[in-house]
Amino acid sequence: MIRPGSTLGILGGGQLGRMIAMAAAQLGLRTHIYSPDAGSPAFDVAAEHTLAAYEDEAALIRFAKAVDAVTYEFENVPSATAATLSAHTQLAPNARALAVAQDRLVEKSFIADLGIPVAPFAAVANEAELDEALSRIGRPCVLKTRRFGYDGKGQAMIRPETEPGEAWRAVGSAPSILEGFVPFEREASVVAARTASGDFAAYDLCANEHRNHILDITRVPAGVSARTEQQAVDIARAIADALDYVGVLAVEMFLVTGDGGERLVVNEIAPRVHNSGHWTLGGAATSQFEQHVRAVCGWPLGETRRLGRVEMQNLIDHDVDAWERILTEPGAHLHLYGKAEARAGRKMGHVTRIFAETT
Amino acid sequence: MIRPGSTLGILGGGQLGRMIAMAAAQLGLRTHIYSPDAGSPAFDVAAEHTLAAYEDEAALIRFAKAVDAVTYEFENVPSATAATLSAHTQLAPNARALAVAQDRLVEKSFIADLGIPVAPFAAVANEAELDEALSRIGRPCVLKTRRFGYDGKGQAMIRPETEPGEAWRAVGSAPSILEGFVPFEREASVVAARTASGDFAAYDLCANEHRNHILDITRVPAGVSARTEQQAVDIARAIADALDYVGVLAVEMFLVTGDGGERLVVNEIAPRVHNSGHWTLGGAATSQFEQHVRAVCGWPLGETRRLGRVEMQNLIDHDVDAWERILTEPGAHLHLYGKAEARAGRKMGHVTRIFAETT
Repeated sequence: MIRPGSTLGILGGGQLGRMIAMAAAQLGLRTHIYSPDAGSPAFDVAAEHTLAAYEDEAALIRFAKAVDAVTYEFENVPSATAATLSAHTQLAPNARALAVAQDRLVEKSFIADLGIPVAPFAAVANEAELDEALSRIGRPCVLKTRRFGYDGKGQAMIRPETEPGEAWRAVGSAPSILEGFVPFEREASVVAARTASGDFAAYDLCANEHRNHILDITRVPAGVSARTEQQAVDIARAIADALDYVGVLAVEMFLVTGDGGERLVVNEIAPRVHNSGHWTLGGAATSQFEQHVRAVCGWPLGETRRLGRVEMQNLIDHDVDAWERILTEPGAHLHLYGKAEARAGRKMGHVTRIFAETT
Repeated sequence: MIRPGSTLGILGGGQLGRMIAMAAAQLGLRTHIYSPDAGSPAFDVAAEHTLAAYEDEAALIRFAKAVDAVTYEFENVPSATAATLSAHTQLAPNARALAVAQDRLVEKSFIADLGIPVAPFAAVANEAELDEALSRIGRPCVLKTRRFGYDGKGQAMIRPETEPGEAWRAVGSAPSILEGFVPFEREASVVAARTASGDFAAYDLCANEHRNHILDITRVPAGVSARTEQQAVDIARAIADALDYVGVLAVEMFLVTGDGGERLVVNEIAPRVHNSGHWTLGGAATSQFEQHVRAVCGWPLGETRRLGRVEMQNLIDHDVDAWERILTEPGAHLHLYGKAEARAGRKMGHVTRIFAETT
């Protein structure tokens, strides 16, 4: 077990690493950030940092030896990087979680094999396979690269009139997956944590609104039935157990309504703290960042109780110019990430608003 | 005005500086800690640090030029240090607040001149003056050094049987103040903030219990009448206004009951965030640390609303060994300061417990 006073290594220097580092410090841990980006906002709140490429094996080994455990803030940690770190220290979440989350085809197959509903999907390695997959899945559907897609990047919608070759070129002719379009009523996510001994705790289901494919607003509660809420938690638990997962994970889902009922379809897994869990910082008894640190260190999980009705709004690009007005707003909690300059699509901070529950 | 992205300098590297630095980071500021102690826990959460003596003028000037504003975590900042910093950057709270808080005689006179009740007091420069003061103040009373006393250090109780010379030697024969003993029912404090434009916001009055002269437990609400609560806030405001104060300050008071009423007697001022305000971190809408940063940066003050009935317990020395049990306690918020080793009287962390209000 990691004790207070130990050093937690964090791979990645963005806002997620920064907020993990601050939660770790609150619990008496030292932190050491590893990032190839000299302007990493997490460097500013950590005891140590290593500025090196994720492929720099010597730097990785020095880093692993300087810390007591390593976690990460992003799912695209190269498998060789994970292997090097795992050979010299404990890495959580594990390499399996990374492998599953990094490849949409592996991920969808893994989830479907657990008996959890996903969109119909087919592997697409070339244009000929795309035609074949299209005839099976039908339109509308979405072509997504198997790897490195996020915030809508590496995706192409295929509508009745879309020329398949155009979609294929739009995703860079890369190995892809074709997914049937899910006519969702809402996007939702569950943020949950699991420890090495199998303890599990989930936060309430969140409803997520996106703008230009980037998370804009998270609302909790999500406004679904108690049965759907429970199903969402069961899904997260089944996934976490199957991965022997340690840490916080997020499961993104589509909520489909119709035929008088609600149905959840899993979209993807994020093996890390997640933007849709930022509301827990101030909005829940334990933040997702503290919860992640507790799980990674082998400590007991904290209470996930919600403290009210919560709304989290991302401050993207020039949204952040409103910081001073937000500071005057009663009950609004401003979080800024310390990034040097605003730019299109860049997450500069977020604001959490907590309201007394009216049920 | 200091904008997000600016650098806040903090003099002092203990837990108060550490928690100010974390609040500043949450608001998008960089921090730079100045401390003569290589093991400063605040270094671990700051972007930069300077390891130098408070008397090192060249280091102070470099520090002042590297930051956009300076604040401090302790009231014994040497006046020469404050003067050097003020000449090169903005210092808040101001040098006047330091001068008043550093000398018990100046402090008591200042407070009494505002028409605020204090214990009867007299200056004592030598043993002869002590005898004279004793005849005026009466026994029991307390002899306190004018400067550098904290956590009960530099104090000697004079009871009916005490030999005055013994008390004089116990305080190191240093310039002192003799204070009449206040037969208090409870110790209390108000933590409040004031901005340069005169905005003021106070947290609810706290009741404080000490163990071996060190704060043990703070409870809020303090369980006093609404009138006493308002008086406490009025006192804090009068003091802050008179000092043209910028930042968070704490006013320590004695609550005296009897003759069917409650009465407040001010004991001392701390021109900084204060241990009795730690409950606000998680227990109030805005923590005292965020509030201090807002005030120092010229930003609007945050809401001081309490989120429930709150108890804050200091973890002193080996109290901290209970960290793992505390982590399992629902609703308990653990804060550890990252200090290397526990020792007698050392504040290692604190735990805040928030309960639903039952009125």
